[in-house]
Amino acid sequence: VKRLKEAQIAVVGLGLMGGSLAGALRGRCRSVIGVARRAETVKIARARGLIDRGAIDLERGVYQADLVVLATPVRVILHQLTEIGTFLSTGCLLMDLGSTKTQIVAQMEQLPDHIQPLGGHPMCGKNVSGIAAADPALYQSCAFVLTPLARTSEAAMGLARAMVEAIGAHPLLLNSRRHDRLAATTSHLPYLLACALVGAMRKETAADSAARVVAASGFHDTSRLAASDVTMMLDILSTNREAVLKAMAICEAQLHNLAHLVQSGDEERLRATLTDIQKYRRELY
Amino acid sequence: VKRLKEAQIAVVGLGLMGGSLAGALRGRCRSVIGVARRAETVKIARARGLIDRGAIDLERGVYQADLVVLATPVRVILHQLTEIGTFLSTGCLLMDLGSTKTQIVAQMEQLPDHIQPLGGHPMCGKNVSGIAAADPALYQSCAFVLTPLARTSEAAMGLARAMVEAIGAHPLLLNSRRHDRLAATTSHLPYLLACALVGAMRKETAADSAARVVAASGFHDTSRLAASDVTMMLDILSTNREAVLKAMAICEAQLHNLAHLVQSGDEERLRATLTDIQKYRRELY
Repeated sequence: VKRLKEAQIAVVGLGLMGGSLAGALRGRCRSVIGVARRAETVKIARARGLIDRGAIDLERGVYQADLVVLATPVRVILHQLTEIGTFLSTGCLLMDLGSTKTQIVAQMEQLPDHIQPLGGHPMCGKNVSGIAAADPALYQSCAFVLTPLARTSEAAMGLARAMVEAIGAHPLLLNSRRHDRLAATTSHLPYLLACALVGAMRKETAADSAARVVAASGFHDTSRLAASDVTMMLDILSTNREAVLKAMAICEAQLHNLAHLVQSGDEERLRATLTDIQKYRRELY
Repeated sequence: VKRLKEAQIAVVGLGLMGGSLAGALRGRCRSVIGVARRAETVKIARARGLIDRGAIDLERGVYQADLVVLATPVRVILHQLTEIGTFLSTGCLLMDLGSTKTQIVAQMEQLPDHIQPLGGHPMCGKNVSGIAAADPALYQSCAFVLTPLARTSEAAMGLARAMVEAIGAHPLLLNSRRHDRLAATTSHLPYLLACALVGAMRKETAADSAARVVAASGFHDTSRLAASDVTMMLDILSTNREAVLKAMAICEAQLHNLAHLVQSGDEERLRATLTDIQKYRRELY
């Protein structure tokens, strides 16, 4: 394992997350190689100065890399993990940016012994996707979850921490199950609530042209996640099904209780419940 | 009914909405009188230049006003409507900014004949409340719902439109039931979803200190409304109960369907459903 300054880094997948990571790392390591399926994407990444060199072939792109970061959707990562092992040099640190970690870390366990695997998930993003939206400042001040395996060496962890700090983020060590459970409640559930809200609005008010005018900033913010990339979200939901369903059940119970209190007219209890929630939300931010 | 330029306007309630309205109207009419319960609030409004004069007594504040705007919480408005009738001059236009309209408009029907009543609800706001947050630019470019009564004269409507346009907003005529049904889905439901989300997070992750770090911008935005003022929201929920419960039931069915699709693993249907919702949300904004 090399030091960051001397490391050749390959970023696989040049969308918003990968393109931004490449741009943030460029100049802080020996070189950044960007790997994308389409030559056009590599061309844009080069033109924007986000990478030193590009490749459209995974094997060529990661050749002799000291650190490889998979920045593709979760199920693409799961597939790439089955084929990338033989392409990597001894001691190579192999990370990913996938939004769920349990299945990815389980798959990483199967990698050949000469590779140092480490799960990762930066807690940042944007409403937009693709290389056009890439921004080297994206990771500034964000929490970057790292989910080490038992086999991940201290030296590999050191390089990963150096990378996280180089892009302005804070490393946060979690095991993969704990990450996925927290993400189900704080990220995947909000997405599904936003979808349910938009679905309800369409059903209840679609025939009324005034609905769009009446929908103010509250609706805008609460429904924002419903515009997320569907392929990315399907990968997340299908690889974190159990935790997502549990979070949904807990939320449905909360909603049911609120509906019961609104219906019953028991204002004292409704006020107490809403005030508790308000306090908790205000303490969070 | 006078023209706006010659009108003496009383704004009752100097919180975020009333204070901002007073500030936006000052200089565009003969004078703006601010009415608040506490002398301290009136003092701040005067010091900030939001009003010409102040009063802490409702009768004195609205004396000889050509236009009175009630900018208090919904149930305070309902109460004020029972006592304000005798204080107002003949032809006075009496409006309100309440977030629900059906009960307010029904109460306005009971006003003495010499008053011109008109329901109103500007579709704007802020996360913060109180006179300190008042901002004369708050109403710029927002939709301002007007819910006229059968008895509201054309001349009164003309003055109301002039006021709405003077503060930079666009008038939108709706009947009170239609407004309340739309608001239930686009505003009151999002509030309750945000509360259910925060309640679920507290229940599922309260013991885990990493939850706050993992919660990223998606959770922040989806949960934002849970920090709303509880007294204001209780007034809204209790005066729009039927429409709110209907919107909640529709949303619960949407959520239930999403949970079913996630659980079943029927990815084709889940993708189709999420893609429809995504398209609808992207067309909205």
